[in-house]
Amino acid sequence: MRISKVFMKCVSAANLTRQIEYYSRFSPSPLSIKQLIDFGADACEQTSFAFLRHEMPVRMANIMKEINLLPSPLFQTPSVQLVYSWFSRSFTELLKYQNTNENDENILKSFTKTLVGIRNRHNDVVPTMAQGVLQFKSFGMEPLNNQNVQYFLDRFYMSRISFRMLINHHTLLFDDSKRPAQSRHIGSIDPNCDAVKIVKDAYENSKLLCDQFYSGCPGLEISTHNSQDKDEPFGVVYIPSHLHHMLFELFKNAMRATVEHHNKRGSTYPPLNVLVILGKEDLTIKISDRGGGVPLSKIDLLFDYMYSTAPPPHEHRARAAPLAGFGYGLPISRLYARYFQGELNLLSLEGFGTDAFIYLKALSSESVERLPVFNRTAFRNYMDQPGADDWCAPSREPRNVGITWHP
Amino acid sequence: MRISKVFMKCVSAANLTRQIEYYSRFSPSPLSIKQLIDFGADACEQTSFAFLRHEMPVRMANIMKEINLLPSPLFQTPSVQLVYSWFSRSFTELLKYQNTNENDENILKSFTKTLVGIRNRHNDVVPTMAQGVLQFKSFGMEPLNNQNVQYFLDRFYMSRISFRMLINHHTLLFDDSKRPAQSRHIGSIDPNCDAVKIVKDAYENSKLLCDQFYSGCPGLEISTHNSQDKDEPFGVVYIPSHLHHMLFELFKNAMRATVEHHNKRGSTYPPLNVLVILGKEDLTIKISDRGGGVPLSKIDLLFDYMYSTAPPPHEHRARAAPLAGFGYGLPISRLYARYFQGELNLLSLEGFGTDAFIYLKALSSESVERLPVFNRTAFRNYMDQPGADDWCAPSREPRNVGITWHP
Repeated sequence: MRISKVFMKCVSAANLTRQIEYYSRFSPSPLSIKQLIDFGADACEQTSFAFLRHEMPVRMANIMKEINLLPSPLFQTPSVQLVYSWFSRSFTELLKYQNTNENDENILKSFTKTLVGIRNRHNDVVPTMAQGVLQFKSFGMEPLNNQNVQYFLDRFYMSRISFRMLINHHTLLFDDSKRPAQSRHIGSIDPNCDAVKIVKDAYENSKLLCDQFYSGCPGLEISTHNSQDKDEPFGVVYIPSHLHHMLFELFKNAMRATVEHHNKRGSTYPPLNVLVILGKEDLTIKISDRGGGVPLSKIDLLFDYMYSTAPPPHEHRARAAPLAGFGYGLPISRLYARYFQGELNLLSLEGFGTDAFIYLKALSSESVERLPVFNRTAFRNYMDQPGADDWCAPSREPRNVGITWHP
Repeated sequence: MRISKVFMKCVSAANLTRQIEYYSRFSPSPLSIKQLIDFGADACEQTSFAFLRHEMPVRMANIMKEINLLPSPLFQTPSVQLVYSWFSRSFTELLKYQNTNENDENILKSFTKTLVGIRNRHNDVVPTMAQGVLQFKSFGMEPLNNQNVQYFLDRFYMSRISFRMLINHHTLLFDDSKRPAQSRHIGSIDPNCDAVKIVKDAYENSKLLCDQFYSGCPGLEISTHNSQDKDEPFGVVYIPSHLHHMLFELFKNAMRATVEHHNKRGSTYPPLNVLVILGKEDLTIKISDRGGGVPLSKIDLLFDYMYSTAPPPHEHRARAAPLAGFGYGLPISRLYARYFQGELNLLSLEGFGTDAFIYLKALSSESVERLPVFNRTAFRNYMDQPGADDWCAPSREPRNVGITWHP
């Protein structure tokens, strides 16, 4: 009996590996916001089911192959093992739907329930993975590992953003209990997302924290420019929660910097200046603060997972300082921007302040998911030893100065 | 007699190859501005001679190895062959000083003359190389080649900036006929370079062209902030001509964009706003225009040599439009910024305007030359076939949507 159990476990592990191998050979299929909207308008549950039951395992298998290539001391941490076990379980659950009948109402219901279960299971992926990275860091790391982990986490978290996007969209469209009674939203997308309103909301939410923590907060000054039509509002087809996430993060950073920089000097707080510009191709939001800025040499570190303090695990969140910052907030906000082919940049004037730029595509047909794909290029990124720098390392004392050399 | 001449030519070509091979095995020795200043203050011609007669061939040999790795259709263009012949000749001339006596006044004088000759010979390297790239482009190019050429030209022109810096510094210090009678400059370096004054000069020089070409020009508004000492001027140890080069380029672009964007609308020109900030680590200059901006998707192209229109060859320069732009101006300005560990960034708000940021190191000890070195990493960059993209290509029509797949 016992031998049979062990045997079955081995068989199922071998089967799992084979299935991951199989699905990882498919490339993920990036969707545009326009496709998600068009699809949501038709709202055919069967089509969504048929797409997701294949696409979800494909995206999962692609990123699971990369988890397997992490440096062994990181892969072996209990945190990464836990995350991997969630993926294995979710992946296996999705495979059950491969040969089922898409016209069976019960199967469609059960699938939606499974998706919700997967979303809940993966809720703590970000802090758990971050704990693994923290443990790994404590072993002392090599530059190669740092580079690998940065490369991996950008892809891993991007992949996660895409899972959640697909799950939320499907459940909002087809889970009756979740569908808001009256809403212009189509799934998680707002076809007329008012960027200026979200700027104001994100500012107010961040202000609440700032007032609470510092008993004061810089004001907000917004200027807008719609280059297409001056009288039109700033409607763009987008996922409001994603834009809010980025803006909230940038406002928290700008407020903290402003308050801490000016408190030292005992002066009042200069306001945060926000510029919202709608062009033909881009919707650009610039947030300028006068919080003292960051030297050029430190800007990249703000996006470095290995340098950041990790976000606290779930149970400790309540105790964390509300504007602590320097967590994973910035790199993950940048992923949200890039997810639909946008960008997030920080340009600082050290000694003065920082300009943060968020770029979104103005057209929903150009907002196409940016998804990692596991292929030979990705594989090489984990395997290759980094070569010597092809630019001379700046050294304070150059060699050869004043030394006459005779061949 | 004829056979003997051919034979001698072969011997000398083989010897040249051997010498390039030999010197390319040394890494260039980056100098900091502080070292250049300290050295200039002592002004010992023998030391400078001893350093340069080795360092110049080392830097030349390093980049000559890379010229040799260019795609053959580019390497074989008459323009690139001409540039390579200049390098071969200059390299050979420098080798003559390897075993000479550094205390012999005549040798020192002859060396300085040789350096001046090299500088003059290489005067037209930028447009000549650009002509070669133009010819190469006309053959039709592959993405690999584009990537290689971009990589090479950034390194090649950076290397050239460094040759000229070393030659100018030496000749200004030791060629009596070139030394200005009264100047606070040490060689080509101004130990108290007034950034605000250079901003004004570059603006005025660019305004001259703009007024001439467009009969009008946006105004200039400068704000400054010295975070170290509010009453001190903006002294930084730097090469004024380099800073002027970058600012002049950015002003030309900002003026052209502003005039052309607003002419269409028949309104007046909004001014260029310049912010000059001195921090502990960075001197940052931000130039903001309201010239309508550039979409995010086009920003990288502004720094792309293969996309740019090449600068016109010397004889046609007089006929070129003075604010033509989109030549090599931006990528080469960025190299000037990076040469001493700074940076140049363009961040645009499409439909509104552009912010350009120049970063310089505030401390001369941190302004260290950034020099390409020929090594295995560089070699691989020319040889490796680029792999598939490790992010999914956005496609307007995703595969697999709605297709049920049965394993």
